[in-house]
Amino acid sequence: MHPFARRVSAIAPFEVMEVLGLARELEHGGADVIHLEVGEPDFATPEPVREAARRAVCDAPMTYTSGIGLIELREAIARWYHDIFRVTVDVDRIVVTTGSSAALLLALGACVNSGDRVLMGDPAYPCNRNFARLFDAEPILVPTDSGSAYQLTADQIRVRATPDTSAVIVASPANPTGTLVADDAWDGLIAACDSIGATLIVDEIYQGLVYGRSPHTVLAHTDQVVVVNSFSKYFQMTGWRVGWLVVPPGWTRHIETLAQNLFICPPTPSQHAAVAALSPECAPILDARRREFANRRDVLLRELPRTGLVVDAVPDGAFYVYADTRAIADDSFAMVRDLLSAQGVALTPGRDFGDHAPDTHVRIAYTQPVPRLLEAIQRIVRWRSETG
Amino acid sequence: MHPFARRVSAIAPFEVMEVLGLARELEHGGADVIHLEVGEPDFATPEPVREAARRAVCDAPMTYTSGIGLIELREAIARWYHDIFRVTVDVDRIVVTTGSSAALLLALGACVNSGDRVLMGDPAYPCNRNFARLFDAEPILVPTDSGSAYQLTADQIRVRATPDTSAVIVASPANPTGTLVADDAWDGLIAACDSIGATLIVDEIYQGLVYGRSPHTVLAHTDQVVVVNSFSKYFQMTGWRVGWLVVPPGWTRHIETLAQNLFICPPTPSQHAAVAALSPECAPILDARRREFANRRDVLLRELPRTGLVVDAVPDGAFYVYADTRAIADDSFAMVRDLLSAQGVALTPGRDFGDHAPDTHVRIAYTQPVPRLLEAIQRIVRWRSETG
Repeated sequence: MHPFARRVSAIAPFEVMEVLGLARELEHGGADVIHLEVGEPDFATPEPVREAARRAVCDAPMTYTSGIGLIELREAIARWYHDIFRVTVDVDRIVVTTGSSAALLLALGACVNSGDRVLMGDPAYPCNRNFARLFDAEPILVPTDSGSAYQLTADQIRVRATPDTSAVIVASPANPTGTLVADDAWDGLIAACDSIGATLIVDEIYQGLVYGRSPHTVLAHTDQVVVVNSFSKYFQMTGWRVGWLVVPPGWTRHIETLAQNLFICPPTPSQHAAVAALSPECAPILDARRREFANRRDVLLRELPRTGLVVDAVPDGAFYVYADTRAIADDSFAMVRDLLSAQGVALTPGRDFGDHAPDTHVRIAYTQPVPRLLEAIQRIVRWRSETG
Repeated sequence: MHPFARRVSAIAPFEVMEVLGLARELEHGGADVIHLEVGEPDFATPEPVREAARRAVCDAPMTYTSGIGLIELREAIARWYHDIFRVTVDVDRIVVTTGSSAALLLALGACVNSGDRVLMGDPAYPCNRNFARLFDAEPILVPTDSGSAYQLTADQIRVRATPDTSAVIVASPANPTGTLVADDAWDGLIAACDSIGATLIVDEIYQGLVYGRSPHTVLAHTDQVVVVNSFSKYFQMTGWRVGWLVVPPGWTRHIETLAQNLFICPPTPSQHAAVAALSPECAPILDARRREFANRRDVLLRELPRTGLVVDAVPDGAFYVYADTRAIADDSFAMVRDLLSAQGVALTPGRDFGDHAPDTHVRIAYTQPVPRLLEAIQRIVRWRSETG
């Protein structure tokens, strides 16, 4: 056999998988574990979506769709941009994908050569750096802090750029911090990417999950951007694996050729289901759930100070809080394991999100109902009093 | 914006897409087109599979599965290898994927560095060469002919190998030829790959679709091989996007890390459906359909000589015939377009499958019922008499 490719050792497993493994062992032994480590909504897929899926599973062959997805889904997405954001996105620029994973792979596959550099903030979604490594490119993790709400700044992009920097990845709302790019920062980010000749890729997969403000899209500012989106989070369709890209004018036929070769097409039943996710029938269900997330966030931000965990940038979106652990632990990685073993609370260690101060942070996902969140707070307080 | 990556111009669109576009135009104008270009079974997904999918779409959140798939599906695949092939495959070596596309991406991602070479026969499945290009590797298309049933030989592998040859791709049954690797050729292929230090990747996605002989797996010969398989063809689940890999012992944790990062997981409803595809309930349905394919193949091989198209290697599997067009056309690419416009018969031009004599071959997919195949034969005979 040939030895493994270099990327195999460069791409590390997620630390959270170890947490999950330990959690399952504890549960197997009868423990009650509160799962705040998982980046998945705890709601069922909305019933109109499920009904559409059941209808799609019919007597006709379940054939491939076009490589860029069902036209009715692409049209529904275009309408949705118009109706929700008052932004006109030509349906030709919309590419349905097998979740945002395939969207990111296509986006980077279209613009990153081996040896190139890809700029991204640190902390960030762990797969971003690994998609760069997939293509033998180098992810450049730029440390961010609460001063910019843990978002990459235009100045950082200019300072860290090199001639072989081919892409910049920004996420708003972001994982793990839940923070947004400030409205007045977008034009600077766009100009900075333009000035260094890099493609701006914006991850908007938590777009609808914002609290105390309206959802936003970078497409209101420019069409010279690649937008990654998904039905997983706001539409609560994680396991279905459907997402989409919005690409700059003129890109679609190139992306379509890549998509045909790499994926053939996104899963057909899931695409039919996703059409219903954008229907007026679903809107009130999704908004009620968004309000529930908002309420959980408020409870968590109110109660967390009792634990000693510190949140220093307002998490206005997604369903995550990124908390500083320094007041209660020397090493957040050890803390996560100990808190899980001793109290049955599962968090995600900062290490999963980058190299910048990872051992002083944890991510808390509020993908559990309020009573469970309050119970988790109690347990962390108890853990602290017992270990401190 | 950054310019497109080099792979974007290296990866060409499928010619068959142009055929399909023209066919749709003709149908829009009222023409009756016989579609023999499409690589998809014309049968509905078996009802027990659809029923399992409907059951899976329930009140519980449709969450991600493990990156390597549902354990019950992996176990069912392991049992299936035992029951059908009498081969023991440890469940730990089975990785469920988002169709064979994701399987190929993971297989090459695990062993191919940028700048490496990947050997494959010519003609072959067009995506094979493009997956190599995805990783900035060079696909080496080795011409094959009827002497080896259009299969790569051990000698060819040894002769064409270089120190940077990291993988060899073989398919049995093969697309576009429908031919199998001879039973006594496997050990030589395995030894040749071993001697040049390359990973052997065997595409078995048409495995159950063999006629007049028993299905076969390379896993009966070695565990030092990466097998790509799929629920698309034999199980008639194309649009569902579920496939699998069997990897050598010790590979799984590396493949799992790659899979988590690149795909998160295969589509969950499709995985639940696929479990039912392996159930005893489905077996008689699938076997009846296999016999229908066998019958279509026999009809086609019996009638094709009337058209002047020549099949010079026995297509014992898949649902394709690869035919030499030299007796009736100078250029198979022009012939495909003309035959479609004049007679409404859609074939796939040889150009999609490689560089070796592509303009003297077409692929005919027998994914239509016998009466339609006979009608297509009539039309080709008529086309020939009118153009000749």
